[in-house]
Amino acid sequence: MEKGQVTIRDIALKLNISISTVSRALRGMADVNADTKKRVLEMARELNYEPNQIAQSLRSNRTNTIGIIVPDVQVHFFSSIVSGIQKVASKVNYNVLFCQSGESYQTELNNLKALIASRVDGLLISLSRETEDIEHLLRVQQKNIPLVLFDRISDDIDTSKVDVSDTDGAFKAVKYLIDTECRRIAYLAGPKNLTISNKRMEGYLHALRAAGITPDEELIVHCNSLKEDAAGATAQLLSLNNKPDALFCVNDPVAIQAIQVIKKHNLKIPEDISIIGFTDDPVSALIEPALTTVAQPSHEMGQCAAKLLIDQIKGYDGTSRTVTLDTKLVLRNTTKLLNP
Amino acid sequence: MEKGQVTIRDIALKLNISISTVSRALRGMADVNADTKKRVLEMARELNYEPNQIAQSLRSNRTNTIGIIVPDVQVHFFSSIVSGIQKVASKVNYNVLFCQSGESYQTELNNLKALIASRVDGLLISLSRETEDIEHLLRVQQKNIPLVLFDRISDDIDTSKVDVSDTDGAFKAVKYLIDTECRRIAYLAGPKNLTISNKRMEGYLHALRAAGITPDEELIVHCNSLKEDAAGATAQLLSLNNKPDALFCVNDPVAIQAIQVIKKHNLKIPEDISIIGFTDDPVSALIEPALTTVAQPSHEMGQCAAKLLIDQIKGYDGTSRTVTLDTKLVLRNTTKLLNP
Repeated sequence: MEKGQVTIRDIALKLNISISTVSRALRGMADVNADTKKRVLEMARELNYEPNQIAQSLRSNRTNTIGIIVPDVQVHFFSSIVSGIQKVASKVNYNVLFCQSGESYQTELNNLKALIASRVDGLLISLSRETEDIEHLLRVQQKNIPLVLFDRISDDIDTSKVDVSDTDGAFKAVKYLIDTECRRIAYLAGPKNLTISNKRMEGYLHALRAAGITPDEELIVHCNSLKEDAAGATAQLLSLNNKPDALFCVNDPVAIQAIQVIKKHNLKIPEDISIIGFTDDPVSALIEPALTTVAQPSHEMGQCAAKLLIDQIKGYDGTSRTVTLDTKLVLRNTTKLLNP
Repeated sequence: MEKGQVTIRDIALKLNISISTVSRALRGMADVNADTKKRVLEMARELNYEPNQIAQSLRSNRTNTIGIIVPDVQVHFFSSIVSGIQKVASKVNYNVLFCQSGESYQTELNNLKALIASRVDGLLISLSRETEDIEHLLRVQQKNIPLVLFDRISDDIDTSKVDVSDTDGAFKAVKYLIDTECRRIAYLAGPKNLTISNKRMEGYLHALRAAGITPDEELIVHCNSLKEDAAGATAQLLSLNNKPDALFCVNDPVAIQAIQVIKKHNLKIPEDISIIGFTDDPVSALIEPALTTVAQPSHEMGQCAAKLLIDQIKGYDGTSRTVTLDTKLVLRNTTKLLNP
C-alpha cells in the first residue's frame, strides 16, 4: 500500500464504524469513547494513515529520517536499543541516522546540530552522563521537532520519555541478596548526576531499610567513569576491615569488572561474596560464573521510544507521556540459592 | 588554531624548507623528492592545513560531517571501528553520522540515500553480507563524494580500502592447530559471497596443504547467517562419524556459539576439540574457557579509514590506496599448549 493513499474511509471500513466517528477520534474530540479512540489510532498506525488535511504539506517537508543520539554504541544495552528503534522505523520506511556522544556534553551538542542540519523529522536521545543543562533540548522543542528521551532522561523537560523501573529493579535485586543471607551489601554506583544510578540507589536503600539494615556509607562507592572505575572501586571495598558480603552493581559492565577483581583476590563467588548486575548484557550469561542481573528490556525500550516518536511525527499523538518498562531479576551463578 | 588560518608558510617554517617546495609538494609535482613530499603532507595534516585556493569555496559547501554505514553495531567489532573513526573525526572537528544496514542490501541503499541527503562530506562503508552489486558505490564516486571501504570491501571498485590480513591470520591460526597435534580441523565459514570468509578459507586451506593434510569438504560448513547458524553447524560437525578435533571459526560470535554446543555434548575443550575464533571480541577473554582467537585491530582500522577519508576530503590526497592491517594470534584456553 502506497503511503498517503489510506483515507479515513479505509479505517472506518476496517473497524466497521462510521467515517465521522473515525474523523472525530483522529481529531481527539471528547465525544468518542476511549476504547473506540484507541482502536482508531491503532488501525491508523497499522495502515500507515497520514492525516489528510496536512499530509501533503508535511510530506513535502519530511525527510523520512529520524535521528538518534546514544552515549556509546559499544555498550550492548544501547546498541540493542538502537536495533529496536531500527526495527520499528524500517516498518514505516523511516531511515535512521545515529550519533554517539561518547558521554560528552559537547559532543552531544555537536551531534544534535548535525542531525538538525540533516533535517531529521524527529529525535530520540539518551543523555550523556555529563549532561546537566538541557537548554539544547528545549531549543529542539522550540523548533517543533518531535523529541523522545529514553533511559537517560531528564525531569526538567516536558516531552515523551521511556525508562525502566530502575528503583523497583534495584529493590528486587537487593531484597534477593538479603533473602539469601547477605547483610553487608555494597552498591557500586555510577556518577552522582546520573539519574538511573540515583534511582537504583533509592531501590537499594529502600530494600535495606525494609529489612531493618542501616545503610553504611562506606559501602556506597561511585564509579564516575562507570566500568573504567569499577576495578578500583571493588578493590577499595575489598580492602575494608569489615568487607562486604555482596555487591549490587549499577550495570553489568561494572559487575563484570568487579568479578575479575574478586577472582584475583581468590574470593569465592557467591560463597564469600554475591554479585548482582543490572542490564542483562549477553556477555553476562557467558562469563564464569554467569552473572545474576536485573534484565532491562532494551530492545522493547527502543521499539517503544520509536513508536512514540513516529506517532508524534505523523501527528497521531501530541501529548507527552512517560512509559516505564518493567525489569526482571534473572538468577544465575553469582548469587546463592534461596533456602526452601 | 582556527581552521583555515594555517598557510603554506607555516608548513615551510616548521619543516625549515622553502615555501615553493611546500607548494610544489602539496600540488604533487614530480620534482619534489618522496621523503620531502611525505613530510609536507604529514605536517599539513598535523596543522590541519586546508589548500588555500579552494578552501573558501570548499568550506562553504562543507557540512564537516562524515557518514558511516556498518552492517551491525551490536557486533563489537563494528562498534569498535566506529569508535576509532569517531576518535579521528573528533580531533578535526568532524561530526559522525552513522547507519546500520542490518546486513540488508536494500537498507544499505536507503542508508546511503539518507546520508547523501544529509550532504555528508565523505562516506565510510563496510558492505552488508547481501551486497554483491556495487552500482550504488560507483554513483557515490560519480557525485565526487570521497569514499573509503573497510573490512567488508569489494574488488570491483577503485577507491581507498582498509582491511586486515585475513588470509595470513587464518593461516597462523590453522598452523597453530596443526602444531598442537590437531588433524581433523573443521572450518565454520560465513556465507559464500562474504569476501572475508573466503579469504580466511584460503588461509585455512593453505595451512592444511602446507602440512600435507588433504582438505575434507565434509569439514567445511557455511553459516549463512553467521552466529545464528553456528549452533546447527557445530551440531552437524559433531554428528559426523569421523568427528573434527579442532574448529577454526570465521569470527568470535560463531566460535562462542560453537563452545556452548560443544559443552552441551560434554566434550572437553581443548582436550577433545580445540577452537580458534577470529576478531578478539572482548567477550572472548571473559568466557569459560577463554577463547583463543585471531585479533583484528578494529579500533586502528576505524582510525586508519577515517584518516584516509579526511585526507581525501581535505584534498591532501586523491589517490586510491588499500591499507592492510596485521592480525595477531592471541592464545587462551581453547587450544592446547605447544610441546616444547
